Amino acid sequence: MPTLLHLDSSADLDTSRSRRLSQAVVDAWSNADPTGVVVRRDLHRDPIPHLADASLHWAPADRRAGANPPAESETLQRVLLDELLGADIVVIGAPLYNFSIPSSLKAWIDHIHVPGVTSADTGALTGRPVVIATSRGIAYDAGSPTEGWDHEVPALRTLFGGALGMDVHVITTSLTLADHDPALAAQRERSEQEFAEALRSASEAGLRLAVSTA
Amino acid sequence: MPTLLHLDSSADLDTSRSRRLSQAVVDAWSNADPTGVVVRRDLHRDPIPHLADASLHWAPADRRAGANPPAESETLQRVLLDELLGADIVVIGAPLYNFSIPSSLKAWIDHIHVPGVTSADTGALTGRPVVIATSRGIAYDAGSPTEGWDHEVPALRTLFGGALGMDVHVITTSLTLADHDPALAAQRERSEQEFAEALRSASEAGLRLAVSTA
Repeated sequence: MPTLLHLDSSADLDTSRSRRLSQAVVDAWSNADPTGVVVRRDLHRDPIPHLADASLHWAPADRRAGANPPAESETLQRVLLDELLGADIVVIGAPLYNFSIPSSLKAWIDHIHVPGVTSADTGALTGRPVVIATSRGIAYDAGSPTEGWDHEVPALRTLFGGALGMDVHVITTSLTLADHDPALAAQRERSEQEFAEALRSASEAGLRLAVSTA
Repeated sequence: MPTLLHLDSSADLDTSRSRRLSQAVVDAWSNADPTGVVVRRDLHRDPIPHLADASLHWAPADRRAGANPPAESETLQRVLLDELLGADIVVIGAPLYNFSIPSSLKAWIDHIHVPGVTSADTGALTGRPVVIATSRGIAYDAGSPTEGWDHEVPALRTLFGGALGMDVHVITTSLTLADHDPALAAQRERSEQEFAEALRSASEAGLRLAVSTA
């Protein structure tokens, strides 16, 4: 049975667009292939602690002599690794927080990138699709003062595409603050339009990936 | 009395180079001006939780109607903001973890970037020095396959320099894994050399900044 790992990291349980986008991918995938299994991990509701010890960056055989990470941290890491390695497709809700990855999602990343276990040279995850559904409060247009201020998507591309060898798909929506920040009121239409387009892209991605994982 | 806020985020309490570099800045600053006060916050030993609620991105008056973040999270955020706003200089040990910011440091960032409180338009932190002491396991040389894979320093420059208007100083050391990873054995000399140079830069920065904060 094909398996999808669904992660969310938004700290907003009411109006989050990254959550709605990741759910749209998952719904389309599930509807297209009812035999598919969805494994759900909400990194905000059930937070992962920060890495307890730097030795956990490495597989046990690659650690420095004397390394002794807490047993419960090793157990947690094993669970997270097994979930990831067992997934045919990964879908991640990843809002931009302060120009980078939310700490809740970064804590998960700090546990699952382990050379020799998930790195591209092992082939463990090579070519597997990962869909990143990302939302940003403002716009980061080329030529604007905030061009290049989104350091999340590039970091996730490096990690999932470069280091893990996965097949990265990014779905983006901007200006999520347009209905909240009076300074962005003129951008409300664009905000809604971008979100509607992103929802369509999310459904299409779910459907397309259901064909590839079926 | 001038005040320095000293943060560390490495999960390695034994061999961390980012910790040794941040300490070298602090030691030089303290030695140059014995009246200076150092406020210490070790984000690994005393971890900050992930943002409990998205409303904490905003000052109370700017939150959506009905926002109700946990009281203890608001209290923690107030403590972190007061520490930052009370500092004449900030020194941060910031190792590169998986191509971005360690989650322990990112959790702190997610609490202290608050529009209208610390953002550049308020002038609250404008021009204040922040020294980022960063260490990377491998090299990220121009022209190498990992050029551009360090997404931490750019993100910290955007946050501290762009969004908060602070005066950012970066001290970098690379190839910290040269004595651990056999594939990097030929790079040991360069690793040691870069670290020695970074330690010198750290001491110089501490001394120079003591003059400006005295």
